[in-house]
Amino acid sequence: MMQPPAIALGLRLRVLAEGPGASAAQVITPAPVGAADDLEALVAFASECDAVTFDHEHVPPAGLRAMAEVTSVQPGADALVHAQDKIVMRERLTALGVPCPRWARVGDRAAVEAFAAGAGWPVVLKTPRGGYDGKGVLVLDSAGDPAWSTAEAWLADWAGRGGLLAEEHVAFTRELAALVVRSPSGQAAAWPVVETVQRGGVCHEVTAPAPGLDEELGAHLTDVALRVAGGLGVTGVLAVEVFEVLRDGRPTVLVNELAMRPHNSGHWTIDGAETSQFENHLRAVLDLPLGSTRARAPWTVMVNVLGPREIEARHEDLYRSYLHVMAHDPGVKVHLYGKEQRPGRKLGHVTVHGDDLESVRARARHAAAFIAGEIDE
Amino acid sequence: MMQPPAIALGLRLRVLAEGPGASAAQVITPAPVGAADDLEALVAFASECDAVTFDHEHVPPAGLRAMAEVTSVQPGADALVHAQDKIVMRERLTALGVPCPRWARVGDRAAVEAFAAGAGWPVVLKTPRGGYDGKGVLVLDSAGDPAWSTAEAWLADWAGRGGLLAEEHVAFTRELAALVVRSPSGQAAAWPVVETVQRGGVCHEVTAPAPGLDEELGAHLTDVALRVAGGLGVTGVLAVEVFEVLRDGRPTVLVNELAMRPHNSGHWTIDGAETSQFENHLRAVLDLPLGSTRARAPWTVMVNVLGPREIEARHEDLYRSYLHVMAHDPGVKVHLYGKEQRPGRKLGHVTVHGDDLESVRARARHAAAFIAGEIDE
Ligand SMILES: Nc1ncnc2c1ncn2[C@@H]1O[C@H](COP(=O)(O)OP(=O)(O)O)[C@@H](O)[C@H]1O
Ligand SMILES: Nc1ncnc2c1ncn2[C@@H]1O[C@H](COP(=O)(O)OP(=O)(O)O)[C@@H](O)[C@H]1O
Ligand SMILES: [Mg+2]
Ligand SMILES: [Mg+2]
Repeated sequence: MMQPPAIALGLRLRVLAEGPGASAAQVITPAPVGAADDLEALVAFASECDAVTFDHEHVPPAGLRAMAEVTSVQPGADALVHAQDKIVMRERLTALGVPCPRWARVGDRAAVEAFAAGAGWPVVLKTPRGGYDGKGVLVLDSAGDPAWSTAEAWLADWAGRGGLLAEEHVAFTRELAALVVRSPSGQAAAWPVVETVQRGGVCHEVTAPAPGLDEELGAHLTDVALRVAGGLGVTGVLAVEVFEVLRDGRPTVLVNELAMRPHNSGHWTIDGAETSQFENHLRAVLDLPLGSTRARAPWTVMVNVLGPREIEARHEDLYRSYLHVMAHDPGVKVHLYGKEQRPGRKLGHVTVHGDDLESVRARARHAAAFIAGEIDE
Repeated sequence: MMQPPAIALGLRLRVLAEGPGASAAQVITPAPVGAADDLEALVAFASECDAVTFDHEHVPPAGLRAMAEVTSVQPGADALVHAQDKIVMRERLTALGVPCPRWARVGDRAAVEAFAAGAGWPVVLKTPRGGYDGKGVLVLDSAGDPAWSTAEAWLADWAGRGGLLAEEHVAFTRELAALVVRSPSGQAAAWPVVETVQRGGVCHEVTAPAPGLDEELGAHLTDVALRVAGGLGVTGVLAVEVFEVLRDGRPTVLVNELAMRPHNSGHWTIDGAETSQFENHLRAVLDLPLGSTRARAPWTVMVNVLGPREIEARHEDLYRSYLHVMAHDPGVKVHLYGKEQRPGRKLGHVTVHGDDLESVRARARHAAAFIAGEIDE
C-alpha cells in the first residue's frame, strides 16, 4: 500500500520480503527474499537504499543497528523498541506521565495473583514481544480460570527473558486510536481520532472520526499521541491504541499499545483523508514535508475482509466475490492484499465514505462480509 | 497511473514498453520492450495476458487484430480507429448526427481554398493520424499565410494516404471535455463535464466541474459522449473533447476529437472522484462493474507540470522543487511521471480540491509552476 504514493511522488521502492509470494513482493520489484532477523540480508538490502522503513515491527534491534551503520533507518531502534516490547513501552509511557492501565511485570503465578489482589480480576496477561492480532494476549478471569495452564506455560517460557506483562482488565466503553506522523526534523501531523472495533484481539472495523467523541478528549488524545511521538523520537506513522473509559462519569483514555508503521486503524486514510498514512509515512521517513491529514468526508468506515472461519463458507476466489460487491454498490472501495486465504487472516479491506454514518457503516459491513463469504446476498 | 488501482483490486499488470525507461516500465514488471507496430512483440505479449489495453492510441489496426486473435483487446480495432484517424472520426460522428465543426477531406491547396471559400478563414489543417499535443495541427489565417509552406509539405506527404482534414476555425468560448467509461457488456458511467485549457495544442489545466456550465448543455454533452461510446462500441475510458460555442446567444458544443484511454482531461479523477479514470478503465476492459464517478469535492483543479521552455529555468531535479511545494501547501497532490525533462513535455501534474474555486485554482497553478521551474517563490 506504499507503492501507489511512491509512484505518484516518483520514489523508487524496493522490498526485502519474507518470501517471494509476500503481498509487497507482488507489486514491488526488486524484492530480494530475507528474514527479518537475517543480519546479512538486512545489511545487503539496506546498503542499496537511501532510507529503510518497515511494514511490521519485528526486526530485532541488532538488525536495526546494523542497517543504521549503512543507511538511514526510520524509525530507529531506540524508538521502535517501544512498539516491539510491551513492558518497555509501559515503563516509558509511565515515566512520561501517559495514562495507562494498571500494570506490572510478572515472573510467576504468585506475582500474577499478587497483582490481581491489587488490581482485581480479570487480569490480562501479555507476552512482551512477538504478539499481534491478539496472539500473545490472555485473559484470566480468576485464580481458577482454565486458561491458567496456558498462562503457566507462557510464564515458564518467558522466565529467563524478563517475564510477562500483567494488566488490569479495562472495562472500556470503546477502543479509540490516534494516528500521527512525525519526521526526523520534528514536523508532525495528526489524523482525526478514530473508533476501532476489535474482536478476539483482531481489528474488524474502524470509523473516522470516532462518533460522538468528546471534543476535549479528542484534543487531549491527539496531544498525548504527539507527545509520545516526540518523546520517543518516533519517525513515520505512530498509531496509539487506547481504551475510552468513564472516570466519575466523564470519558478519558488509557493507552493500550503503540504501533510504529502504517497501521490497520489508519487504512481508512487511503480513501478517506487528503493524505494517506502510507504517503505521509513515506514523506516522513524521507524527511519530506508532510501532507494534509484532513478527512475528505464527514464519515469514513473501513471494514477488514477476514478469512472465513468455515472453510466451506469460503468463496472460491475473492476476485469473483468482489464482482458482486462492485455491482451492488459502486461507491465501495475494495482493497485486496494478494494473500492466501486462512481463517481469520486479514485478506483485504473495504472503505465507504459519505454523509450518513448508519448507511456508510451498513454498506461497508455488507461489502466486507460478502467478499469474505460470510453472507450470500 | 493504472498500477495503484490494479494493486488495490489484486489485478496483475504487465506492460509492453517502448523502452526500458518508459514511465510505466519503472513501476510495473515484467515490462518487455517492444514498439507499438512490432507485430511479433505485440502477439508474444498479448498471449500472456487475459486482456490488453492501451495508454496511447498508436497501435496500428493490424497489430490490434493480431492480438485479438489470442486475447481480449479493449478497445477493439473497430472502435479505436475513431481515435486514431481524425477523418474516420469526422465521417462517423457526422453519420451519427453528432455536431462537429464544418470539415472536409482535402487533397491539395485548391481543395483547402475551396473549403475556406465556404467556411471562411482561418482554416485548421490536421494530419488524420499520429498527432498529439497539437503536433499535426496547423492554423492557416488566409491564402497568404506563411504557414502555407508547411501546409504544402503536409499535403504532399498525405496525398497518397487519403489527404488531410480541414476544419473551420471555431471561435469557441472555451473547451470542455466529457469523460465516460463503457464496458464490453454495455455498462456505462460518466464523470462530471470539465473545462480544459489548451495552449499551443497542449493541455495545461482542467477544472472539474466546468464552472458555470449550463445544466442542460452539460446533460446534452454527457448524452452525446455516451451515445458516441455506445455507437462506436468503445470499451474503457472515452474522452470527448469539445468546443463550447454560442449559437444565437445560447451555448452549445461541437465535438473536436475523441481519445479512447485514460486521458489528461481525466487526471483530476485520481484525487477528485470516487473512482478514478484509471480504476474504471481497468474495471471496464475486464468487464467488471464500474465504480461511482461522483466528484469528491465542490471543485478540483488539475494543472500539468510541463518541461520549462528555457533550459536555464529548469530545476535541477523535480524532486527538489516539489519539496518546496509540499512545504508551502500540504493539500497539493503531486504526481510525477519519471520522465526526462524536455521543453513542453508533460512531466507530471498537480491536483488541488476545495470549496473555493479561485483559491483552489491559484494553489494548483502555483504548485505546477513552481515544480516546473517557472517561478521561484
Ligand atoms: N488491559 C486490557 N483490558 C481490556 N482489554 C484488553 C486489554 N489489553 C488488550 N485488550 C484487548 O485485546 C486487544 C489486543 O490487545 P493488544 O495488546 O493490542 O495486542 P496485539 O498486540 O495483539 O494487538 C485489544 O485491542 C483489546 O481489545
Ligand atoms: N477546428 C478548430 N478550431 C479552433 N481550434 C482548434 C480546432 N481544432 C483544434 N483546435 C485547437 O487545437 C487543439 C489541439 O487540436 P486537436 O485536434 O485536439 O489535436 P491533438 O490531437 O494534438 O490534441 C485543440 O484542443 C484546440 O485548442
Ligand atoms: Mg493491538
Ligand atoms: Mg486534442
